[in-house]
Amino acid sequence: MSQVVTDFGLLTRASAETKMFHAGDVIFREGEDAAQMYVVKSGAVDIRRGNRTLETVESGGIFGEMALVDGAKRSADAIAHDDAEVVPVTEKQFLFLVSQTPYFAIGVMGVMARRLRTMNTLEP
Amino acid sequence: MSQVVTDFGLLTRASAETKMFHAGDVIFREGEDAAQMYVVKSGAVDIRRGNRTLETVESGGIFGEMALVDGAKRSADAIAHDDAEVVPVTEKQFLFLVSQTPYFAIGVMGVMARRLRTMNTLEP
Repeated sequence: MSQVVTDFGLLTRASAETKMFHAGDVIFREGEDAAQMYVVKSGAVDIRRGNRTLETVESGGIFGEMALVDGAKRSADAIAHDDAEVVPVTEKQFLFLVSQTPYFAIGVMGVMARRLRTMNTLEP
Repeated sequence: MSQVVTDFGLLTRASAETKMFHAGDVIFREGEDAAQMYVVKSGAVDIRRGNRTLETVESGGIFGEMALVDGAKRSADAIAHDDAEVVPVTEKQFLFLVSQTPYFAIGVMGVMARRLRTMNTLEP
């Protein structure tokens, strides 16, 4: 699927809201309620469980999409890796994007598939 | 998101093609190329890596969606758990469903999120 979105950075251009974090700042914690995902506009964000970094999400990448799609609590911590700007995407905005741009939806699924593959290879 | 699809069984009603498998039959193997996902119409299908069953997908559930969205090879084996009927969904059909029914897309993401959460809890 060659038109699939793999760089979500475009989403940050039209957004009014950008949140700034410094290295080590907590964006969210495992177990928290959640209703939005984030796009990394600049810098990078570590996704961690305990002492383990599952992934470092860089500019143009997304994180926090799981809680958005299944309504469950955050499954990991998100910590700024260095100075980072992130743009929140609310459930309403997400639903709009999915309904208007199927390649956005498939792009998000692609990110999740990649994470599942990574988790598979981390298995004992 | 209350309208999210969690039972994909409806997809099997309009389909002309149903594949039948007996307990232990291989539907696909890890490492194979792939261009379709499946909906379980009846029976159940085990998703396995080596000797380990990651999930048993029952009637109304889907499997094989990862290779469809990221174009990579199968990440696990799919083996009929008992006598099972499955309905293939091609890339073209999938794209149509995603573009026409955002709640289908979000339903697929929900399945993937649940799998990621399961993988997380299986971690060492």
